[in-house]
Amino acid sequence: MYPLECVPNLSEGRRPEVIARLAAAASSDAETRLLDVSSDPDHNRTVLTLAGTPEGLHRSLLALYETALAEIDLTRHDGVHPRVGAVDVTPFVPLGDTPMEVAVAAAERLGQAVAERFGLPVYLYERAARVPERRRLAVIRRGQLEGFPAKLADPAWAPDFGPARVHPTAGVTVIGARFFLIAFNAVLDTADPEIARTIARQVRESSGGLPAVRALGFFLARRGRAQVSMNLVDYRQTSILKALDRVRREAEALGARVVETELIGLVPEEAMLGVAREALQLPELSWGRVLERTLGAARQGFKPLAIEEKTDP
Amino acid sequence: MYPLECVPNLSEGRRPEVIARLAAAASSDAETRLLDVSSDPDHNRTVLTLAGTPEGLHRSLLALYETALAEIDLTRHDGVHPRVGAVDVTPFVPLGDTPMEVAVAAAERLGQAVAERFGLPVYLYERAARVPERRRLAVIRRGQLEGFPAKLADPAWAPDFGPARVHPTAGVTVIGARFFLIAFNAVLDTADPEIARTIARQVRESSGGLPAVRALGFFLARRGRAQVSMNLVDYRQTSILKALDRVRREAEALGARVVETELIGLVPEEAMLGVAREALQLPELSWGRVLERTLGAARQGFKPLAIEEKTDP
Repeated sequence: MYPLECVPNLSEGRRPEVIARLAAAASSDAETRLLDVSSDPDHNRTVLTLAGTPEGLHRSLLALYETALAEIDLTRHDGVHPRVGAVDVTPFVPLGDTPMEVAVAAAERLGQAVAERFGLPVYLYERAARVPERRRLAVIRRGQLEGFPAKLADPAWAPDFGPARVHPTAGVTVIGARFFLIAFNAVLDTADPEIARTIARQVRESSGGLPAVRALGFFLARRGRAQVSMNLVDYRQTSILKALDRVRREAEALGARVVETELIGLVPEEAMLGVAREALQLPELSWGRVLERTLGAARQGFKPLAIEEKTDP
Repeated sequence: MYPLECVPNLSEGRRPEVIARLAAAASSDAETRLLDVSSDPDHNRTVLTLAGTPEGLHRSLLALYETALAEIDLTRHDGVHPRVGAVDVTPFVPLGDTPMEVAVAAAERLGQAVAERFGLPVYLYERAARVPERRRLAVIRRGQLEGFPAKLADPAWAPDFGPARVHPTAGVTVIGARFFLIAFNAVLDTADPEIARTIARQVRESSGGLPAVRALGFFLARRGRAQVSMNLVDYRQTSILKALDRVRREAEALGARVVETELIGLVPEEAMLGVAREALQLPELSWGRVLERTLGAARQGFKPLAIEEKTDP
């Protein structure tokens, strides 16, 4: 098992050949694996999911920043998703038993190297934040790239690494460490972005909605549909299905309907099983109930299962 | 991967020490693995899930029949679930790429051995049936054990193996081969078995309901609740969630509600993922979206994923 996951978000979601070069750079080191590429042309954004060793990810990410700075001109970027950099945000996530400190150390090391090598202002966020106000990505990103020159005039917004001036084509970059996050979007049967924004406000924690849910409303011009875009930052507090059910209810109250959903990047298998558990009202559902899983365990050296009565005797 | 699964259904669901002896016998051969034990005291029935080689399963199942005949007296058995034998029904199921013929051959061989060794009348069903009317288990079991003496007076009901008379304590036994089946029960908030029976009639294929669904309604005295007990014989035709949603709607129309569900035995992982896919309106959901799965594939020799745009470019 690799110790770290890394999920760089890039401000390019339309040019397949550029996306391919970015993905290739991000997995150019032998100790890095590319697990997923999720691009959206309306967001004009690509999310890569990588796994690797701290060393391998460090080398691959430097290659990714180099490619992104050569390929992406943020002054010519348009897309519905807020962004402040060509490499907008790069979170490290501990996998398995890896302590959070390893992810924090990887973020700090990458931040320093990226600032030195490319002259990029670097902001450390979430668990890697050195300034409490920078824990929340939304706070750093408020006003987007266009708001940063004014922000940088305030010493409180001096970057954690690098110069206190926006890079001419790549903006700034936000690097950090956090727990696993599920990026999950609900597409509505309406083209009205106000409906999506209203639902997002009702669903997200910051305006009194569901715990550990962040949400924004967008209009997807290419699909002609509005979208509620969510980050579930702790699926044990609010599961994918609970978030979706709330979106469905709020949409219904506004005369709209969810037509489909999409995942950006990957989900932990426990979150997936949790969806089945909730949807089926089957609290006892575990991987022990899944044939292939149980067969796999049997092949590796079998221990008879405890005999459980399903009901009171 | 073992080539066969076998899912013996035993007419004992109340005495834990007897259930333990049955489970031990069923996995007594080194080439057999016990994957699951599901017992229900109201049904007074236990479902074992085994996997193994044809040889290993044959030896284990002979040990199981021997133990069941020593431990279970069907003349003293009561339970809500229909039954005709101490070992009521023993289906073999092909796993992986195993052809159905291997399961049919295992059923025939076991049927012959069980008849010779224990003097049990044996009926071959589903894909192992030699008489078309015996394909359906429900037809063989109609009238239950108590109806069998009269049935056996009719030459059309001569068993496939063994004597044309009911065993004094073990009844008859039904052995066969079939595809994977999902046994899934919905527990209602009512004690009225008529409501469960009405829902079962509306849901099952044989009375015009959902394809590949069999259903019965029961009253569970120990829980004081009615239950719709379903067999989904092809989850690709009717998924677990579709069957449950239909039960929920029919229950609602009768003023009742599903309070929880239960699985008997195991489900294929594809059926589990299908539940998440349907519940989330996420048609593109595949194992490639599951972190641990993707990491597992990466460890075993990684091939970069194809870059897919989630939407039209």
